[in-house]
Amino acid sequence: MMAETRAKPKKFIYPTNLKWVEARKGLLSSSGKPTIKVSTPPEFKGHPGIWTPEEMFVASVNVCIMTTFLYYAERENLRFLSYESSAEGILEKGERGLIFSSIEVVPEISVKSVNDIEKTRDLLALSEKNCLISNSIKSKVTVRPEIQVNKENNQDG
Amino acid sequence: MMAETRAKPKKFIYPTNLKWVEARKGLLSSSGKPTIKVSTPPEFKGHPGIWTPEEMFVASVNVCIMTTFLYYAERENLRFLSYESSAEGILEKGERGLIFSSIEVVPEISVKSVNDIEKTRDLLALSEKNCLISNSIKSKVTVRPEIQVNKENNQDG
Repeated sequence: MMAETRAKPKKFIYPTNLKWVEARKGLLSSSGKPTIKVSTPPEFKGHPGIWTPEEMFVASVNVCIMTTFLYYAERENLRFLSYESSAEGILEKGERGLIFSSIEVVPEISVKSVNDIEKTRDLLALSEKNCLISNSIKSKVTVRPEIQVNKENNQDG
Repeated sequence: MMAETRAKPKKFIYPTNLKWVEARKGLLSSSGKPTIKVSTPPEFKGHPGIWTPEEMFVASVNVCIMTTFLYYAERENLRFLSYESSAEGILEKGERGLIFSSIEVVPEISVKSVNDIEKTRDLLALSEKNCLISNSIKSKVTVRPEIQVNKENNQDG
């Protein structure tokens, strides 16, 4: 199937499989990857302690901002020390029912030198603009970076 | 924080956390839930065998269709025997870069009696219409149900 577009692939296909188990629970799989338990969240008659479609949706944006940043950081030779990010999605009533109105992503990045701060900020702005998941959704995505210089590491280097 | 809206909550907040590990890999977490390894997919210089934001995005739709169906099935007293679904998301070049243009979800459901087929189809159509993730994204979501009657079970019943 891919042979036709091998020279210059323009489409990528992402498959996932799901199997209902019992109550509001299922098993999510994708070839060669660990199976993930999923369920409806507790606030909609589901179960605690299990990943839900709501969280996976927010996670897909959170992770996409990071993977896009990793791409730009490599391309632009930015060395950073650590990257952690929290993301919160807000689900609320829209005109046609519940909708994710917004997702806020807060990446905390430490860099070696103050000289890297601006570059890091610029590459995050690029990542915010070009994250393919953000571009595929209606929710307003905001990225609020918190960049700090790791002084200990500076002393070592 | 929730106290103000306890009487009639209109907003739900879904948080996720992410920590970069090395190369194109990270660890995804959410309070009280199993940590999931995540990465960039191999076709974008990432790693095989690890969940990616692309798959999590498609998965969020796949699972949301099921959890929405489970809600309606309970509400309308539909008893079904099994539910499995595959979903494929197509990522391709849009005007502003790569975008998920469409997601096709194929739920395979077995029911006890031919009399349940139409009701099942109707509730899936409702789920397609009211899935809150579908409503939050730009990708065209199509649900193509395959409903079958489990004859063995019929003989038993």
